[in-house]
Amino acid sequence: MVGTILGTMYQGVKANHGQKEINNIIFLIGDGMGVSYTTAYRYFKDNPNTKRFEPTAFDPYLVGQQMTYSDDPKHNVTDSAAAGTAMATGVKTYNSAIGVDRNGTPVKSVLEAAKEKGKSTGFVVTCQIAHATPAAFGAHEKNRKNMDAIADDYFDEKINGHHKIDVMLGGGVTNLVRSDRDLTKEFQKDGYDYVTNKDEMLKSKQTKVLGLFAPEGLPKMLDREASTPSLKEMTETALSKLSKNKKGFFLMVEGSQIDWAGHDNDIVAAMSEMQDFENAFEAAIDFAKKEKHTLVVATADHSTGGFSVGAKGNYNWFAAPILAAKHTPDFMAEQIAKGADVEQTLKSNIELSLKPEEIRLVKKATESKNVTEIDNAIEKIFDNRSLTGWTTSGHTGDDVNIYAYGPGSDLFTGKINNTGQAKNIFEMIKKGK
Amino acid sequence: MVGTILGTMYQGVKANHGQKEINNIIFLIGDGMGVSYTTAYRYFKDNPNTKRFEPTAFDPYLVGQQMTYSDDPKHNVTDSAAAGTAMATGVKTYNSAIGVDRNGTPVKSVLEAAKEKGKSTGFVVTCQIAHATPAAFGAHEKNRKNMDAIADDYFDEKINGHHKIDVMLGGGVTNLVRSDRDLTKEFQKDGYDYVTNKDEMLKSKQTKVLGLFAPEGLPKMLDREASTPSLKEMTETALSKLSKNKKGFFLMVEGSQIDWAGHDNDIVAAMSEMQDFENAFEAAIDFAKKEKHTLVVATADHSTGGFSVGAKGNYNWFAAPILAAKHTPDFMAEQIAKGADVEQTLKSNIELSLKPEEIRLVKKATESKNVTEIDNAIEKIFDNRSLTGWTTSGHTGDDVNIYAYGPGSDLFTGKINNTGQAKNIFEMIKKGK
Repeated sequence: MVGTILGTMYQGVKANHGQKEINNIIFLIGDGMGVSYTTAYRYFKDNPNTKRFEPTAFDPYLVGQQMTYSDDPKHNVTDSAAAGTAMATGVKTYNSAIGVDRNGTPVKSVLEAAKEKGKSTGFVVTCQIAHATPAAFGAHEKNRKNMDAIADDYFDEKINGHHKIDVMLGGGVTNLVRSDRDLTKEFQKDGYDYVTNKDEMLKSKQTKVLGLFAPEGLPKMLDREASTPSLKEMTETALSKLSKNKKGFFLMVEGSQIDWAGHDNDIVAAMSEMQDFENAFEAAIDFAKKEKHTLVVATADHSTGGFSVGAKGNYNWFAAPILAAKHTPDFMAEQIAKGADVEQTLKSNIELSLKPEEIRLVKKATESKNVTEIDNAIEKIFDNRSLTGWTTSGHTGDDVNIYAYGPGSDLFTGKINNTGQAKNIFEMIKKGK
Repeated sequence: MVGTILGTMYQGVKANHGQKEINNIIFLIGDGMGVSYTTAYRYFKDNPNTKRFEPTAFDPYLVGQQMTYSDDPKHNVTDSAAAGTAMATGVKTYNSAIGVDRNGTPVKSVLEAAKEKGKSTGFVVTCQIAHATPAAFGAHEKNRKNMDAIADDYFDEKINGHHKIDVMLGGGVTNLVRSDRDLTKEFQKDGYDYVTNKDEMLKSKQTKVLGLFAPEGLPKMLDREASTPSLKEMTETALSKLSKNKKGFFLMVEGSQIDWAGHDNDIVAAMSEMQDFENAFEAAIDFAKKEKHTLVVATADHSTGGFSVGAKGNYNWFAAPILAAKHTPDFMAEQIAKGADVEQTLKSNIELSLKPEEIRLVKKATESKNVTEIDNAIEKIFDNRSLTGWTTSGHTGDDVNIYAYGPGSDLFTGKINNTGQAKNIFEMIKKGK
C-alpha cells in the first residue's frame, strides 16, 4: 500500500513527538472540499480594497494532502461512505460501505477506540446524523442507504455496556422517529438530553445530548433561521460537554453540505457551506489553543463537481456575484415553484442589477414547473457572472488538503493515504491517557 | 501581503536550518500542473495488478502549496509570465509581464542573483527558450509577446561583463535565428556550444551551451523522434555542465507543455508531458541525493483547463484509454489534415477497439478541413473513455502543490505565496558560498 510506503517517511517523526500530551482529538471533514473549494473561498473572503488575498482560517495550518480512492470493484473514485470508513477505521473498502471492510465485516472506528479508552465521543454534522460520514464513525452497515439501521446502531451497539456516542448534533429526525421505533425517546430514557432547536441546545445540561434540528439535512447556512444552530454553535456545544471528561474526547465535525452544493453545481451554496465549516474550524482551533492537549485535523473526503476557479477561457473568478446572493438558488427555486413571482423573487434575493435575459431564462425554466430546472437556471446566473466551471454532478478523484494544529500534527504532513488518518489517531488513542 | 503574514510562520525555521550547505538549486516548474494533474498522473502510472495506487516520483516530497494569483488590474487568475516573474523575482506583477514590476521596471531574478554570486546558471524547457516561464528568469520585457527581444536580452543583458545564462536548452530557433540577427552565431563567438539534436548535445564539451531542438516548441514526448532529447536528458546535460562550477549553480527546469496540453484540453498530451516532467524531476532528485548541497523544489505556476479526475456523474477515471494512444491527437489530426485516411490513422495510433460512432465523428470533423476540429474530435474519444472533464481553454486560480528535497526544503512547507519561492532562494543565495 502507498500508505505503507509513505508511512516509513513519518515513522521517525512518530517516535519523536510527545504523544502522551494528546488528550483530545477534533477531526473535521469538509465533505467534498477539494483544493478548488479552499482556493475559491479565499477569493470569496478577500477584501477587495487590498492587493493581497487575505488567508482563510485554514491556510496557516496546511500540512499535507491525502489520496482518497476507495477499494471498490467497480469504482476508482470514492464516495463519502468508503472515504469516511477509511478515515474512521483505517480500512479501504467499497463505495457505500459503512464501517465494514470489503467482505462486509465490521471494523473498529477511532470513535469506538476512544470510547473503549474511557474518552467522551461525539459528532456534529449538517446532514442527517445517519448520513454516510458520521455513520462511518459510529455504525456498521453494508449499505449507506440503510439509514434507519445506522441510527439503530448508534443506540444498540454498545461499548462496555454504554452507548458509544455521547454527543450527536445534526439533522435527520426521520431516521430516529419512526413508526417502529422512536430512538429519541430511547436515548432520553438513558440520560440523554434531546433538543430540537438552538435555544434548547444551548440550555441543555446533560453531558450526553442528541440534537436533531431538521427532518433531513439542515438548511444551508444562507437559508437558516435563527432557531437552527450553526455548525460552529453545535461544535462549541459539543466541546463544552465533551471536555468535561478528564480522560479527553474524540469529536468529528462535518461540513456536510459543501458536497451537496457541489453535487448540485451550486456555487452560492458551496461558499455558504464553506463559511459555516470555516467558522467551526476556527472554534476548534480556538479551543485547542486554550486546551493545549488537543489535536485538530481538518481535511476533505474527496472533491465534488469538478469545480474550477475560472471557466470558459477567462482569467478571472469573481466572488462579488456570489456575495450578492441573500439565499441559495434552491431556496429561490422552491419559492418560485410554489407560485412566487419570478422577477420579484430574484430581485429580492440577489443584490445585482439582473439583465432581462437572465430573468427571461429563469421564467422559461419555470414553465417546466420542475423545481430542479428552475434551480439550474438560477445557478447559471451565478456561474456565468462568477466564471465558475463544473464537470460533473458526482465526485472527482483529486487529492485533498490536510490542515492540522496541535500535538501530533506532524504525523499528518506530506502525502498520506486517507487510511493514514485513522492509523495515526488509533496510535494516539492507544498511547494517550 | 499574505506572504508576509504567512512568512512569520517560517521565520523560526529559517533561522534554524543550515543554509550554508545550500550550494546548488534546481527549481522545477510543471507549467499548468494543478492538483488534478498530479493526482491523475498517479492513476495513469498505476499498476492495475495491485490494489494500491503506487506513489509517483513527486508524492514523497510534497511539502506545501502556493497561491498563484497575479497583481493585474483586470485579471485575478495568473498567466505564466506573471507567475514566472513572481517565482523568479519575488514580485507580483501584471499578466504578460516578463521580469518587470507593475510599473514596467525591471526586477532582479534569482538566476541573476546566482550569476552575480559567481554561480553557474541555466534553464531547460520544452517550449521556446524565449517563452514566458524561462523569460521570467532571464529577461526583462513589458510583454511576453516580444519573444525576439527576450532572446536578445539573454545575449545583451550581461552581469559583470558576462552572459548571465550558461545553459539554455529547449526549442525556438525562430526567435534566435532571424533576418536582423543570428544569436546562435553570437553565442558561439562567445564560447558557447550550439547544438540542434540529441547527439550533438551529448557530445558538447563546452561548459556553456545553447541547444535549440525545434523551430518553436519541442514535439510532445509521445510524438518525439530519437533525435530530440527528452526533458530528462536535457536536465542531465545541464547538471553535468553546471556542476563543474565549485561555487554551485541555479537551474530552472520547466515541463512547459503540460500547460499546452491543458489549453488544448488534451488528456493524452497532458499525461505524456507529465511523464516527461516526472523523469526530469527524478533526475534532479538523483543528482541531489548524490550531491548533498543541492536543494530541489518542484511546483506549478497555475493550473490549466479546469481538468477534473472524473466527469459527467461517473465515479471513475480510466487511464487505460489514454495509455492506448501511441501519439497525441494533435499528431493524428495533422496527418489526417494532410490527407491520411481517418480510420487507418486512428487505428494505427490508438490501441483500442474503436466504435464506428467514434470513427464517424472524426470523419465528420474532417469535412471541415480544420485541423483543430479534427483534433477536438479525436480528443473527445479519450475524454469520453477516460471520463476526463474540462471547463476552460485557459488557466484556473486553484492553489498548486510544492514538492521539495534537500537542505532548505523546510522553507517551502505549508501555504506560501508564489513570491515566497524567490524570497527563499534569494536568501539562500545571499547566505550561500
